[in-house]
Amino acid sequence: MMTTVEKIGQQAKEAAQVVAQLSIQDRNQILLSMAEALREQKSAIMAANQTDLENATALSGPMRNRLTLDDATIEGIATSLAAVADLDDPLAGPYENWEHPSGFKIIKKTVPLGVVAMVYEARPNVTVDAAALTFKSGNAVILRGGKEAIHSNIALAQVLRSVLTDHQLNPNIIQLITDTTHDSVNELLHLRQYVDVLIPRGSGSFIDFVVTNATVPVIETGAGNTHIFVDEDADQDQAIEVIVNAKTQKPAVCNAAEKLLIHEKIAAEFLPKVASALIEAGVELRGDDQAVAIDGRLSLATPIDWDTEYNDLIMAIKVVTDIDAAIDWINAHTTHHSETILGKNSQHVADFMNRVDAAVVYQNVSSRFTDGFEFGFGAEIGISTQKLHARGPMGLPALTTIKYEVFGDGQTRH
Amino acid sequence: MMTTVEKIGQQAKEAAQVVAQLSIQDRNQILLSMAEALREQKSAIMAANQTDLENATALSGPMRNRLTLDDATIEGIATSLAAVADLDDPLAGPYENWEHPSGFKIIKKTVPLGVVAMVYEARPNVTVDAAALTFKSGNAVILRGGKEAIHSNIALAQVLRSVLTDHQLNPNIIQLITDTTHDSVNELLHLRQYVDVLIPRGSGSFIDFVVTNATVPVIETGAGNTHIFVDEDADQDQAIEVIVNAKTQKPAVCNAAEKLLIHEKIAAEFLPKVASALIEAGVELRGDDQAVAIDGRLSLATPIDWDTEYNDLIMAIKVVTDIDAAIDWINAHTTHHSETILGKNSQHVADFMNRVDAAVVYQNVSSRFTDGFEFGFGAEIGISTQKLHARGPMGLPALTTIKYEVFGDGQTRH
Repeated sequence: MMTTVEKIGQQAKEAAQVVAQLSIQDRNQILLSMAEALREQKSAIMAANQTDLENATALSGPMRNRLTLDDATIEGIATSLAAVADLDDPLAGPYENWEHPSGFKIIKKTVPLGVVAMVYEARPNVTVDAAALTFKSGNAVILRGGKEAIHSNIALAQVLRSVLTDHQLNPNIIQLITDTTHDSVNELLHLRQYVDVLIPRGSGSFIDFVVTNATVPVIETGAGNTHIFVDEDADQDQAIEVIVNAKTQKPAVCNAAEKLLIHEKIAAEFLPKVASALIEAGVELRGDDQAVAIDGRLSLATPIDWDTEYNDLIMAIKVVTDIDAAIDWINAHTTHHSETILGKNSQHVADFMNRVDAAVVYQNVSSRFTDGFEFGFGAEIGISTQKLHARGPMGLPALTTIKYEVFGDGQTRH
Repeated sequence: MMTTVEKIGQQAKEAAQVVAQLSIQDRNQILLSMAEALREQKSAIMAANQTDLENATALSGPMRNRLTLDDATIEGIATSLAAVADLDDPLAGPYENWEHPSGFKIIKKTVPLGVVAMVYEARPNVTVDAAALTFKSGNAVILRGGKEAIHSNIALAQVLRSVLTDHQLNPNIIQLITDTTHDSVNELLHLRQYVDVLIPRGSGSFIDFVVTNATVPVIETGAGNTHIFVDEDADQDQAIEVIVNAKTQKPAVCNAAEKLLIHEKIAAEFLPKVASALIEAGVELRGDDQAVAIDGRLSLATPIDWDTEYNDLIMAIKVVTDIDAAIDWINAHTTHHSETILGKNSQHVADFMNRVDAAVVYQNVSSRFTDGFEFGFGAEIGISTQKLHARGPMGLPALTTIKYEVFGDGQTRH
């Protein structure tokens, strides 16, 4: 007897064959119909969301905001969905092809991954985003959102699925797991027979849990303990602007700066200046012994600080002896997301770029730009912090794989 | 206190920064020196191999052959190693690059993965192959070969490492784990801090064990329960040639055919003909009820047969009603390696190509061609049966990843 999650997996695998065959015209037309349907079903969606909001009395302000669906957010979701129709088809050729000396032809095609599973927090917009991007790239999707958003997610998924049915398509191209206990996530992590890739979104500890326990293939996303190193020759005014932007422009996201390393030769001069700017912007500062000795406004950091992604207006500052010490420190504490050097010495910059082990490495730019839209990809399914398959901001091509098609007339190997 | 395997991991991570910086000229020069050194140290290697052979009294003939190093095999290994120097640099540009509207530049570079771990059976040639390919692509490698080859592997690794030392390089670019108990494999599977990817080679059950237990990223390789479907309009003489080649030309490898599906409309005519050819070539035949009813020389297959990779001169034959039944059967039993249709109906071929979920899908060609050299990649580190990162025969590019380098002059996000 199959469990509900297994049944969903089996249905997704079947539906994957259907969506993989749709022309790009059909996929785009359906995306536009989905956007329209979301607008038409607005009141039903908002009513469901109201139930979630009433149940979610324990949620903090920012979490509550992310959960709320009103006229403006639903319009925003519909607009984003329609925008996916405008993106290039990630499955389109031309494909590489060549001939074997014996005369058969090999075509290296781009094809959908198959069944993509997404596990995410209480953000109903992700339900639609993920469904749109996986559909555009020819995949079936299994969605498992946070329990606080369950009524909203059911309403949204229902709208998207009804559009599939209206187009005489298998609605199981898009499925939502409505069991919001941990059991359903655990089952999903082990559904190797049906799930081609699982993309987890959420806290660093949740993603760690997924990577450690999953037997299905996973793309690790998001955790960002990101550093900025200020070299001795940095333009100090520019450095302060970049640091304040990277730390405070949106502190709760993964590409926000968390740690500041300052070359010891400029620390006595630069640290108080940047500290003043950060404090004025509302940032709580912590530091190592040397940093605290230079500026008494910093509290002493504990060892755990150096590996913590605050996602908040907090920053820890450390004084380092030179570029090598900065690189070694970063490589020991990085989550491989985004790392920055502020400075002009071309040898130091080259060393930093070459040796720091991160998806994106910046010189004199705010790390807040690590983002699929800012990188020009037109979409973002997440930011990969791993090295296999996809690294950094992931656009539609991250949801595809390849397949070799070989056409011959009886060739055998000798 | 670090364990030996942890220490090896840490050393590999350090050494990875060194090898990643070497010019392609240096990498190629060192590969040629390694080939020369293997030839010079031939007697020491053969002496070590002799110890392995004396200890390996329990090994079967083919396994013993794979373990044996004599003049010819060492010359072959040295020649293959030198040939890696001739391959294109997988890290070479040109790299994609573009400008953000705010004026900073993004370069999408190709970079090494970092630390590659290989776990493999008692084939000492893999020690050298894997070291050469990972070195060429700028990676450090951790090798863990089968216990029967341990003395040979120590001798080979010693030769390669001494060449690194002679070139004033960190010898830990190439490391061999000499603990051949299961403990060292288990530790390696969980060395997330140091291992960027682990590539297992060996039996299907071993690879399953690795995928199920590893927390480090894994590229699944090799298992091949490969099928051939003979459609009703196949050229029957050609089909027999292809089937006999795919089954018998090298039955112990992953791209050899294991199962034969025959369209019921031609089964009564075709099955006895192909069975005669296979029996003549020494193949033991099993079949489902229908196949056995047609040809009494087949024994009845058990359910386990349909999911077994024989790697031997055995084949199971099944009669199917049509192309859809063939595709569904294959998708339920495939190991996603190589699958073949023999036939001419262009709609059937297109359906088969599109819907069969495998790395390589063939029309009228022997699946024995699924191989990095036959595909023109010049090298092969394994054959991926997964969809993330690499699929099918893996050449040098499978050992690389990307990194975004961003250069600006103070850009901030608003």
